[in-house]
Amino acid sequence: MDIQALLDGIVAELAGRRGEGKVADYIPQLAKVDPNQFGIAVTTVDGEVYAAGDAAVPFSIQSISKVFMLTLALGKVGEALWRRVGREPSGTAFNSIVQLEHEHGIPRNPFINAGAIVICDLVLAGYKPKEAIGEFLRFVRSLADDDTITIDRAVAQSETATGYRNYALANFMRSFNNLQHDVDHVLGVYFHQCALAMTCRQLSRAGLFLAARGADPIGGYSVVSEKRARRINALMLTCGHYDGSGDFAFHVGLPGKSGVGGGIMAIAPGKASIAVWSPGLNKVGNSALGTVALEMLASRTGWSIFGA
Amino acid sequence: MDIQALLDGIVAELAGRRGEGKVADYIPQLAKVDPNQFGIAVTTVDGEVYAAGDAAVPFSIQSISKVFMLTLALGKVGEALWRRVGREPSGTAFNSIVQLEHEHGIPRNPFINAGAIVICDLVLAGYKPKEAIGEFLRFVRSLADDDTITIDRAVAQSETATGYRNYALANFMRSFNNLQHDVDHVLGVYFHQCALAMTCRQLSRAGLFLAARGADPIGGYSVVSEKRARRINALMLTCGHYDGSGDFAFHVGLPGKSGVGGGIMAIAPGKASIAVWSPGLNKVGNSALGTVALEMLASRTGWSIFGA
Amino acid sequence: MDIQALLDGIVAELAGRRGEGKVADYIPQLAKVDPNQFGIAVTTVDGEVYAAGDAAVPFSIQSISKVFMLTLALGKVGEALWRRVGREPSGTAFNSIVQLEHEHGIPRNPFINAGAIVICDLVLAGYKPKEAIGEFLRFVRSLADDDTITIDRAVAQSETATGYRNYALANFMRSFNNLQHDVDHVLGVYFHQCALAMTCRQLSRAGLFLAARGADPIGGYSVVSEKRARRINALMLTCGHYDGSGDFAFHVGLPGKSGVGGGIMAIAPGKASIAVWSPGLNKVGNSALGTVALEMLASRTGWSIFGA
Amino acid sequence: MDIQALLDGIVAELAGRRGEGKVADYIPQLAKVDPNQFGIAVTTVDGEVYAAGDAAVPFSIQSISKVFMLTLALGKVGEALWRRVGREPSGTAFNSIVQLEHEHGIPRNPFINAGAIVICDLVLAGYKPKEAIGEFLRFVRSLADDDTITIDRAVAQSETATGYRNYALANFMRSFNNLQHDVDHVLGVYFHQCALAMTCRQLSRAGLFLAARGADPIGGYSVVSEKRARRINALMLTCGHYDGSGDFAFHVGLPGKSGVGGGIMAIAPGKASIAVWSPGLNKVGNSALGTVALEMLASRTGWSIFGA
Repeated sequence: MDIQALLDGIVAELAGRRGEGKVADYIPQLAKVDPNQFGIAVTTVDGEVYAAGDAAVPFSIQSISKVFMLTLALGKVGEALWRRVGREPSGTAFNSIVQLEHEHGIPRNPFINAGAIVICDLVLAGYKPKEAIGEFLRFVRSLADDDTITIDRAVAQSETATGYRNYALANFMRSFNNLQHDVDHVLGVYFHQCALAMTCRQLSRAGLFLAARGADPIGGYSVVSEKRARRINALMLTCGHYDGSGDFAFHVGLPGKSGVGGGIMAIAPGKASIAVWSPGLNKVGNSALGTVALEMLASRTGWSIFGA
Repeated sequence: MDIQALLDGIVAELAGRRGEGKVADYIPQLAKVDPNQFGIAVTTVDGEVYAAGDAAVPFSIQSISKVFMLTLALGKVGEALWRRVGREPSGTAFNSIVQLEHEHGIPRNPFINAGAIVICDLVLAGYKPKEAIGEFLRFVRSLADDDTITIDRAVAQSETATGYRNYALANFMRSFNNLQHDVDHVLGVYFHQCALAMTCRQLSRAGLFLAARGADPIGGYSVVSEKRARRINALMLTCGHYDGSGDFAFHVGLPGKSGVGGGIMAIAPGKASIAVWSPGLNKVGNSALGTVALEMLASRTGWSIFGA
Repeated sequence: MDIQALLDGIVAELAGRRGEGKVADYIPQLAKVDPNQFGIAVTTVDGEVYAAGDAAVPFSIQSISKVFMLTLALGKVGEALWRRVGREPSGTAFNSIVQLEHEHGIPRNPFINAGAIVICDLVLAGYKPKEAIGEFLRFVRSLADDDTITIDRAVAQSETATGYRNYALANFMRSFNNLQHDVDHVLGVYFHQCALAMTCRQLSRAGLFLAARGADPIGGYSVVSEKRARRINALMLTCGHYDGSGDFAFHVGLPGKSGVGGGIMAIAPGKASIAVWSPGLNKVGNSALGTVALEMLASRTGWSIFGA
Repeated sequence: MDIQALLDGIVAELAGRRGEGKVADYIPQLAKVDPNQFGIAVTTVDGEVYAAGDAAVPFSIQSISKVFMLTLALGKVGEALWRRVGREPSGTAFNSIVQLEHEHGIPRNPFINAGAIVICDLVLAGYKPKEAIGEFLRFVRSLADDDTITIDRAVAQSETATGYRNYALANFMRSFNNLQHDVDHVLGVYFHQCALAMTCRQLSRAGLFLAARGADPIGGYSVVSEKRARRINALMLTCGHYDGSGDFAFHVGLPGKSGVGGGIMAIAPGKASIAVWSPGLNKVGNSALGTVALEMLASRTGWSIFGA
C-alpha cells in the first residue's frame, strides 16, 4: 500500500474544500488561525512516517492532550482513577454541566472537559502546578521523540482569561468534593495542557504506542501495558468526539480524539497512528475537513476496526 | 487456537458464579426463567461452530433483535433511515423518554427502545403488522439457516399487556410525527420482534455476516455491503449496551448487542460471531455473567478490535 | 365601584387588539374557532353578575376544568390525594414528560396535564368512565346553577384521536404504577372533562365558591371548607398558568387557571369570580388578550391579592 | 385581635418541638448555631411591634437579603432588570445549574442563587464591591430604622472560602455574558449580602413597606411604588421558597422569603410584616419550625391572601 500516494491524493482532492467549517472563536487566540490550512501525517508501527499538506505547521492540540494526560494519570494512580471519572459517552456537549448535577459531580468520561479537569487534579497530587505541567510536557516530548514541542503561552493565557465555563465546571465538581486541589491550580494545569502546540507529524508520532500494543516500536520501550493501550483506544472510540462520537465511529471507524483547534488523532491498531488538522469545525465541534480526510483514509486503507 | 477448549474452560471457570445478577422482572414472562443457565457459542468466519454450556436452550433474545430489524430496515429504506433516528450513544437508560423531549422526538440511536420502535414503523411501510413480523422472522431464519426459530407468543403477549413504558415512548414520538403508523400496530411488530426465541448456537450463526464483511461465508451470499456491515458494527460498539456501552467497549472491546433476556451477541470482525446467554443482569441491564464470559474470551483470543 | 363600566371600558379599549395571539391548533377542533372573539364576566360574592363582549358564547374551557375536577376529587379522597400528585410549580411546559421521569411518575401538580390525568384516575375509583363524566358534568352544572352546560363531543373526539402526548403521559405514569385504571378509560374521562363548553357568564358563576370561603353565596350551601378553598386558590396562583404562572402572578396578582381554548378563570378572594375568553394564546399558552384584560381589571379594581 | 397573645401561644405550643429539622452545615459558620432557638416578631402597618421567643437574637438572614437587594436593584435599573433574570418558579433546588444550561444563562428568578448573583452584578454598575455592600447595608438599616445592623464577616468569609457552587453558577453565567463584572467582585457582594445579621424584630420592621403599599407607614416615606410592592410580593409567593414555594403557598398562604439560616420573612398585605426564625431546616431547605409557626399564625389571624 502506497500510503504517501494516498495522503497526496486526499490533500489534492480536498484542496477545493479548504476553509470549510467554522473556526472556534470562544478562545480568542484560536480565532486568529488561518482557516485554509490542512495537514495530515501517518506514522506506521514499523516506523515509517508519511505526511502531506501543512503537516509541519504547529497547531493548538487542545483536547487531544486529554489522551496523553489520561495516560500519564493512569501511570500514576492506576485503575483507582475510575472512582472519580466514568467511562461512558456523555450524550451531551463537551462543556455541559447538566450531567454533573445529575450524577453528583462525577464526570462521565475523561475526554469531556469536566473529566479532563479531574484528571489534572489527580496528576497534581504531590506536585506544584508548574511541576505537573513540566512533567506532562516531558512526557509528550518523549512520546513524540522531539524536544522542540512547546506550550503556547498566549493560548494558555487566553483561556485562563476567558475560560469561564471551565471555571464553572471545576468549582461545581469542587462543591461535590471531586477536586482536591485549588481550582486555580487545577485549571492552570488544564489550560496549559490544552495549549500544547504540535504538528501533524509530531502528533502522529506521539500516538504511535496506542497503535502498537502500548509499546513504542521505534524507541523499543513500553509506555503502557497492552491491555491499557486497548482500553485507551476503546475510550477514544466511544467518547473521543463528544456528542459526535457515534457518528465518527460510524463514518471513520477508528478510535480518535479531536480538539477545537481542528486537530484529530486517530489510531489504527496494529497499523498506524494518524494525525490530521484543519481549523474549521463541524456542528459538534470536530474538524470538518479532518473528519472527511479520515473517512477517506480509513476507507481506502481498510483500516476500520469494524471490518475484517 | 482451540476455541472449543476456550469455551469449555470459560464454562468451567464460571460454574460457581451461575445465578449472579438479577433476572429482569418487569416482563412477567421473563421473570420465570431459571437464573442458573449459562451458554456460549462461537461461529467462525470459516464456518466452524463451537458451543458450551446451555448453548442449545432457546431464550428470549429481546433487544438483540434490534440488530436484525435495523439490518432489514436499512435494506428497505437505505440511509434515509437516519433522518428519523440518530447514531449517538444516549447517555441514558434504555427506556428513557427525557432525551426525546429535548430532541423533538428523534431517538438517539436504533438500539434504545425508542429508536427500535421507529425502525419498526419504517419496516411497516406498505405492510400489515403480521406481514412485517412474518418478513422479519423469515429474515432471521435465513440468517441463522434454521427454519425452526419461532416467536414466543406468551412473551409477546406479556409485553403487550404490560409494556406501558413502550406505549409511552411510541405515543410521544407519534406526537412529534416521528411515527407514521398506528401505535398499536408498530408496537405489535416491536413486541413480537423482541419475543424471538433463539439458542446461542442459532444466534451466533445469525450474526456471522457482520463478522464476514456483510456476506454469509457459509451460504455464500451477500446480506449487506461491506460498508454497511462495518457501520452496524460501529453502532453496536457505541450504542449496543445502553448506558453501559462505554464500559463494555472498555472491558470486552467487541461490537455487541445485549438483551434483557440475558443474551449478548458480539462480533469479532474477520474472526467470528459470538453468542452468550445467562439470565442474571448487571446494574445497567446487561447479562452479568455473559459480560464476564465475553471479557475472558476476548482477552484469551486477542480478538479485541482495540488491539493489534 | 361600577364594575359594568369597568368591563365595558376594557372591552372598548381592547377592541383594536382582537385576534392577537395564536389560536391553539394541535387540537383540530379548536383551530376552527373565530379568533376575534372576546368576552368577560364577573360574578361578585354578593351575587351580582356583570358581563361584556362575547360573554354569552360557549367555548371549550379545556384545562380550566382541572380546577373543578380537583375539587371533586378532593371531596372523594381528601388530602390522601397528595400522595399521588405534588403541589409545586413545574418549571416546564404543560405537557412535559421530563419531570415525570426524574420524579418517578409523580406529577408536580394537578394543573399540568399529567397531574390532571392522575386526578381523573382517582375520580374513576368505583365508577365506569361514563358515570365519572356524568358526575363531573352534574357537579359543574350545580356550581354554575345551569343545567344547559354540555360537553362538546366533537372536541372530545378530536382530542381522543390526536392526543398522543397525553397517551404518552398516561402510559408513562402507568409504568410507575401511578395510574390504577385502564389508560383508555382514564383518558376518556380526561378528554371529556376538557371538552366542557361554557360561557364566560357560566364560568364566573361556577367559580364563585372559591371567592366566597368555599360556600356558594347565592345558593347558600357549602361546596368545600374555607381552608380547602384557600388551598385551591393557592394552587391556582402558583401552578395555574403552566410555565407562565410566575408572570401571571407578577402582572395580574390573582389566582387563576387558563385553558388552551383561550379562557381564564380568576378569583378575587372575598370579592368576585372572573371569567375571560379570547382564543389567541401567548407564547406560554395562555390567552393573550385575556391576560391583558385581567391585568387591567385587577389594577383598576385593586383586587390584587398582593396589595393592601 | 390580640397579636401578642397569639405569638406567645405559638411559642408555647412549639416549645416541645424546638430543634426540629436539620441545621444547614454546608456553610461551616452556620453549622455552629444553637438549633433550639426560636423567635417570632410582627410589625403591623399601624406601627405596632409584637415579639416572642428569641426575637432579639441576631441570626444570618442569608437568602432573605435577596428581597432587599432586588428592591435596591429595581430602584437603580427599573424593569430593564427583567431582561437578565426571569420571573418564574424554577422547579429545582436553590443552587441548581441545570436550568441555566437549558436557558442560556438566564436564571429563572431573582430568589434562587443564580438570580441573586445577577442582581448583585446589576447593583455593582459604577461601584466598587465595598461601595455596593455599603449602599446595601445603609438601605437595610434605613428600612429597619436601625443603624446597629451589621454584616457578620466571619460568615461572609466562611462562604467566600467554601462557596464553590456559587462560584460555579457565577462563572457559568459569565460564560453566557450574563455577568458584566469580575466574578470575585460579584460574589464578594453576594456573600456579604447573605451574611447580614438581623433579629426577628429588625427583620419584620424592614419588610413593613411591602405590607403597606410600598411606603413606610412609620417613617412616612415611599420606598417603592404600590405596583412594585405588589410585584415583589408576587415574586415572593411564587419563588420565595425554592422548590417548596408551592407547598408554602398551600399551607401558609402568604408571600415569604426563607434563608438557610432558618429565618423567614412573610408579608400580610395591608396587615403586617412578619419575621420568624428557627435554625433547623426541612427537606427543601426552609425553616421547619418557622414554617409551622407561620401556618399557625396565618390560620389564626385569617391573614392568608387566598381567603376572603
